[in-house]
Amino acid sequence: MTPAKHNPEERPLGALLAPDIIALLDESPALIAAETEEMHPADLADVAEAMPVAQVPVFLNALPKDRAAQVLEYLDEELRAEVLEAMTAQQAAALVTEMNPDERADVLEELDEEVAEEIVEELPAETRKETQQLRKYDPDSAGGLMTTEFVSVNADTTVEEALRLVRRIARSEKREAMHAIYTTDEDGRLVGVLSLRELLAAPEGATLADVAWTEPQAVSPTADREEVARVISNYDIVVVPVVSESGHVMGVITVDDVIDAIEEEQTEDVQKFGGLEALDEPYNTIGFWSMIRKRAVWLSALFIGEMFTATALGVYQKEIDRATVLAIFLPLIVSSGGNSGSQGTSLIIRALALREVTLKDWWRVAGREILTGVTLGLLLAVIGFSRIELWQSMADRGVTAFGVALGHDYSCVAEGIGRAARCGVVNPHLVALTVALSLVGVVMFGTLAGAMVPFIFRKLGFDPASASAPFIATFVDVTGLIIYFNVALHLLLR
Amino acid sequence: MTPAKHNPEERPLGALLAPDIIALLDESPALIAAETEEMHPADLADVAEAMPVAQVPVFLNALPKDRAAQVLEYLDEELRAEVLEAMTAQQAAALVTEMNPDERADVLEELDEEVAEEIVEELPAETRKETQQLRKYDPDSAGGLMTTEFVSVNADTTVEEALRLVRRIARSEKREAMHAIYTTDEDGRLVGVLSLRELLAAPEGATLADVAWTEPQAVSPTADREEVARVISNYDIVVVPVVSESGHVMGVITVDDVIDAIEEEQTEDVQKFGGLEALDEPYNTIGFWSMIRKRAVWLSALFIGEMFTATALGVYQKEIDRATVLAIFLPLIVSSGGNSGSQGTSLIIRALALREVTLKDWWRVAGREILTGVTLGLLLAVIGFSRIELWQSMADRGVTAFGVALGHDYSCVAEGIGRAARCGVVNPHLVALTVALSLVGVVMFGTLAGAMVPFIFRKLGFDPASASAPFIATFVDVTGLIIYFNVALHLLLR
Repeated sequence: MTPAKHNPEERPLGALLAPDIIALLDESPALIAAETEEMHPADLADVAEAMPVAQVPVFLNALPKDRAAQVLEYLDEELRAEVLEAMTAQQAAALVTEMNPDERADVLEELDEEVAEEIVEELPAETRKETQQLRKYDPDSAGGLMTTEFVSVNADTTVEEALRLVRRIARSEKREAMHAIYTTDEDGRLVGVLSLRELLAAPEGATLADVAWTEPQAVSPTADREEVARVISNYDIVVVPVVSESGHVMGVITVDDVIDAIEEEQTEDVQKFGGLEALDEPYNTIGFWSMIRKRAVWLSALFIGEMFTATALGVYQKEIDRATVLAIFLPLIVSSGGNSGSQGTSLIIRALALREVTLKDWWRVAGREILTGVTLGLLLAVIGFSRIELWQSMADRGVTAFGVALGHDYSCVAEGIGRAARCGVVNPHLVALTVALSLVGVVMFGTLAGAMVPFIFRKLGFDPASASAPFIATFVDVTGLIIYFNVALHLLLR
Repeated sequence: MTPAKHNPEERPLGALLAPDIIALLDESPALIAAETEEMHPADLADVAEAMPVAQVPVFLNALPKDRAAQVLEYLDEELRAEVLEAMTAQQAAALVTEMNPDERADVLEELDEEVAEEIVEELPAETRKETQQLRKYDPDSAGGLMTTEFVSVNADTTVEEALRLVRRIARSEKREAMHAIYTTDEDGRLVGVLSLRELLAAPEGATLADVAWTEPQAVSPTADREEVARVISNYDIVVVPVVSESGHVMGVITVDDVIDAIEEEQTEDVQKFGGLEALDEPYNTIGFWSMIRKRAVWLSALFIGEMFTATALGVYQKEIDRATVLAIFLPLIVSSGGNSGSQGTSLIIRALALREVTLKDWWRVAGREILTGVTLGLLLAVIGFSRIELWQSMADRGVTAFGVALGHDYSCVAEGIGRAARCGVVNPHLVALTVALSLVGVVMFGTLAGAMVPFIFRKLGFDPASASAPFIATFVDVTGLIIYFNVALHLLLR
């Protein structure tokens, strides 16, 4: 048998097997448990997602309770809620009792508040207490991510004793996170940690205090998931304990929950940075109007912000009347500000998320970005200046290619409707200079604003990722055209 | 002792201890090993990063070889290269021999090609072979991420025998990935997997074939890191085997390497989406000119693309001459296209990355985004239309606040330099209608283009994340103003 390899464009295993299993469910449901015994619960969840919703409870019933609970953990959130709400509270309680405590709390969180309460009432007393404890925490905090199943022993325990204990626990219970064993002092406070492998490697006769690492990494129950991810990834650990103010281990968070958290966070960040509210649901399942709502709010806000460009241009209409040539370079100049702002923002958002820079670095970043902005602005200024001079000179010399006149005469002004424009009035070199100088100013301002807004957002307590590319562009557009027209007023329209 | 809790705004532990350890290094280097024994190598790496570069090799020499190698794994990449290049090839080889094979290959990859070859020559024969094997793979592929240290045994082995073997290996060698044990058939091909915990829980007398899971998840050595991350996160596993065409385990990838890979990927995606080349280096360490290069390429490309707006506007200069009012709404209309495009792109980039949609879904996405675009466009059209009508009516009725005239008269045209503009010529309702209809068209086009470009990039073999917000904006700007002036030509300037 060759192991299942993953080809990105292939259908997942579950979807391939779904028709067979659905057929079997109709014909001889008693065989389902045995036939699917070796399948990973994630694949069984894919099978369940491929069947009609009404069949899913039948399918889950055909599986052993603990297997059904595992399948539930991997099931699409919406489908899971639907399936559980369709069951009686007793049935649902019997299933969720078998789940890991952290998953159980998350699943209940997704249900209708009333249904969730009914199910909690039906849980065995100890499970109920544990569940209520976990449900107190924000699902995105360490307290919400943790599971309350872990192994901790007194540091005086001998290695052999600990091994016997670990084997007993491994056989009798489902302890999700048995990658590490925590050692405690006489008051039950966390003092050390060792991996299962280190326990196996420990010399016989030693106590855990002899072999465990002191100063274990830990997080507080209120730490957010980004913080948990950072600790796990900085220290390359598979599981991190959640420790109360008093130093007691309340639970542990395993790396798989953190990966999910990182991916969700990443999706949210990209969506926010793209200029919409985070969807919180996959693109292919979110409803049309929910999607519109998530996009409309920011889009309208940006539109209203951008209206200030119309206000500003209203003020400068006289100047445009005097030299419509100014309008020609309007989108070029304001968009250059937006683009350089978007670069600055994306750099700083990531640098802040990875703690490469912190709030107090803002002035150092500002200095660097001003220099960068001027350099990049000069580069664009040279390109822009050359383009205008080249086009003007082609127009002056009447260059044609395939019978088409090349270049553009930037020296013309309007002489009223129905009359021919009068050319040779505006100095085209001054047009080129106006555009070039404006570009330096606009790119410098865009770069600086793009880099500073994430700092300001962080300082105000918002997510820096909300400093989206469209937000920066809108913010910079208004300023950009004010810079442009002021340069024009001093240089071109004196 | 309370375990170290992580406060996001606190300095990391390493930085706090650095001055003490640096002082100790000067006074009595012999004590360094004992004093830092309980510290995590990640914290020791922070200490090393806080000291003058020239001191780092001294510090590493003061540590036991295996500890020094671990510190090296956590050290900043640039510093690590600098330190290794400063050593003799023998010294460096002695250190990197102690590293995990995957880390060793990565470290050598970062060095100057010649220095790396010299170090490889100095490695013990077996280590050298293993290293050369790993260096053949792209560092971002499964082959480049894997380590060649893992435990695999014949499936016929008994549980007790396997446990003895595992304990022996755990004691004698540094096997990074001892979370899982792989079982093989008589030809050495992978047939099963069980976790260390499952091995401990297995009944005595059973063979591994009785207790191992068949159909283990695996990846091919050429799979990219995103693919590896997806398998690990889908199946909630801590380690995934890399399996050759013939079904033999070549190595394993542990979750910590995947988290690093996910974070790097995320940084690259955000930077690309922000409209620059991925930096590949932290913001606070990259050199000024490297940074300029990464930003200048895209910024100039976008600028040159945006020049087509100047070309297009040159063509429409006559129309602007006839109604400069058109210029007033230019930034508002083109930016609305860019913003809606940015939303569509960010959604599809993420949906593609998470496989929520695949290439063949493009027509379904296109249909949905056209509908979304029309809906959002109508929303902005209503806002824009009302704004223009309101301002015009305020101007008509001469409304003032605090002595300032409110509103704007959109009916005026230029009558040449030095003459007063003539008002009442352009129909302001038609201006409002032109803007509104253009918005529907531009937002619809922007949304559709934003959603489709990532598909096109994927199809052409580029990273969809390169469809940056600025790229879409630039692309949509030119089309946006063509739509705008065509609507104006048919409606306002007939």
